Amino acid sequence: MELTFLGTGAGLPSKERNVSAIALSLLQEINHIWLFDCGEATQHQILRTTIKPRKINKIFITHLHGDHIFGLPGLLSSRSFQGGDELLTVYGPSGIKEYIETSLRLSCSHLSYPLSIVEIDEGLIIDEEKFQVYAKKLDHVIPSYGFRIIEKDKIGELLVQSLIDIGVMPGPIYQQIKENNVVQTEDGKVLYQKDFIGPSKKGRIISILGDTRYQEGHREFIENSNLLVHEATFEQDKANLATDYYHSTTTQAATIAKIGNVDQLVLTHISSRYQDEDTTRLLDEACEVFPNTSIATDFYQLSVELKA
Amino acid sequence: MELTFLGTGAGLPSKERNVSAIALSLLQEINHIWLFDCGEATQHQILRTTIKPRKINKIFITHLHGDHIFGLPGLLSSRSFQGGDELLTVYGPSGIKEYIETSLRLSCSHLSYPLSIVEIDEGLIIDEEKFQVYAKKLDHVIPSYGFRIIEKDKIGELLVQSLIDIGVMPGPIYQQIKENNVVQTEDGKVLYQKDFIGPSKKGRIISILGDTRYQEGHREFIENSNLLVHEATFEQDKANLATDYYHSTTTQAATIAKIGNVDQLVLTHISSRYQDEDTTRLLDEACEVFPNTSIATDFYQLSVELKA
Ligand SMILES: [Zn+2]
Ligand SMILES: [Zn+2]
Repeated sequence: MELTFLGTGAGLPSKERNVSAIALSLLQEINHIWLFDCGEATQHQILRTTIKPRKINKIFITHLHGDHIFGLPGLLSSRSFQGGDELLTVYGPSGIKEYIETSLRLSCSHLSYPLSIVEIDEGLIIDEEKFQVYAKKLDHVIPSYGFRIIEKDKIGELLVQSLIDIGVMPGPIYQQIKENNVVQTEDGKVLYQKDFIGPSKKGRIISILGDTRYQEGHREFIENSNLLVHEATFEQDKANLATDYYHSTTTQAATIAKIGNVDQLVLTHISSRYQDEDTTRLLDEACEVFPNTSIATDFYQLSVELKA
Repeated sequence: MELTFLGTGAGLPSKERNVSAIALSLLQEINHIWLFDCGEATQHQILRTTIKPRKINKIFITHLHGDHIFGLPGLLSSRSFQGGDELLTVYGPSGIKEYIETSLRLSCSHLSYPLSIVEIDEGLIIDEEKFQVYAKKLDHVIPSYGFRIIEKDKIGELLVQSLIDIGVMPGPIYQQIKENNVVQTEDGKVLYQKDFIGPSKKGRIISILGDTRYQEGHREFIENSNLLVHEATFEQDKANLATDYYHSTTTQAATIAKIGNVDQLVLTHISSRYQDEDTTRLLDEACEVFPNTSIATDFYQLSVELKA
């Protein structure tokens, strides 16, 4: 699980930061990439990475503000010319379907792949073999969602030595033990999986929130995430502005990370009023509350590793 | 009158060429800038120029393909945050109104300036003090327009020496002669403007065509332009592809420039199949037919001067 921040600015593109988009690479896990938000020129940013648009099979839209969706029609159209033929599903708030369908219809864009558009509500929105995704409504001027991506726990390793010790030698039976609770060997031994499988590996949890005010009520949703991606449009001094415009400050984002007991926090959606030289200050504010914080820049990448 | 090519590629953005947009600076003439097409990330390209979005007061859309319109909602929204408060008018084919209005409504974008959207037909679409614009339907898979921008002829210079010779000295009367066909001086002299104004200066003509197949019938529309901007998606060898996809070749664009007796031709909308090293070949093909040709690259600028 590897994140690439494709756009880390707020509202408008600037020379330093494009508008919102984050790619979550699940290539190792399921051979796909998921995209979170798709501001204008996201496809242009992707051109500067190794990401293949045809590998993107899910796009999650946090909310319908232009800086989060205006790159969608272009990316969807271009994917047709980049070898895309697999199903792509877009998840987003009510209105996303009309936006995409109107844009594609009026521009006479014909897609080479099936497109599914799911208008979401709160709760479990995806439950697949390896991943679950939950959505939660945040506190923004228009409906804005957060996503909690949960990797399902992985079965532990086969305790090969224990099997050999009781005379069960390597062969197809080993795979059967991994896949069934109880197995009988050819010579009649009954083997319970739990006796021959080590402790399961805890799956990873990544929480990516859309634009939002600070709300203590978000704690439970992001709790114990390995990684929290949170907006920090303003510095703490501008907390009033943040409240007025339904955004968060550095300190507020760090606070939710702390009370939510997450491992790591990445701040994004930084106002264009802040220049490169201001980011140390913004980072310091957050780290005072939650030390394991970083501020994303465009093309910033980080891996979220399985815990030992 | 100065053109800046903001995007010169066809269909998809590439690292070398963005999708279509051309800015026509009329800052000296009317203190405004006109934009022709607005592919995705046009506002990003503008960030790399000296163009002020609030100076753009007219946007002409040749046709509704995504590579010509997907930057429109973002540019319109951002202009609100860049000091835009003057009326902006968008001219384009039927459907442009629904596209813009749906995008702005669903993204909850509130503009700080009045926006007028005019769905055009063929003929005279603008007739203002200094400029006229005509539109013509071309030959593309969907309705695609060309625009002929005509600067009205400028009144010649006042023949100051002739006035002095007959005893009319510099003063407010000079301005009156410029503005009226007949003027009477305080001491009763009747002066006819035609006797005291030099030859009028021929206004400039720029023709900018949208995506189109070659059609000899376009000759009249672009005739005698100081500058013709024409698409050349393909090399001459690919004339069949050009016909199939409703586009033009280098040689075809040069042919219409030649038979239309224009002064200068600029080719744009170059397929991403052509790399930098291919452009000499493309240019040679065109120059064989029409020597005064250039191929636009992103950020290419050229001035169209008044003729002496
Ligand atoms: Zn935003
Ligand atoms: Zn085109």
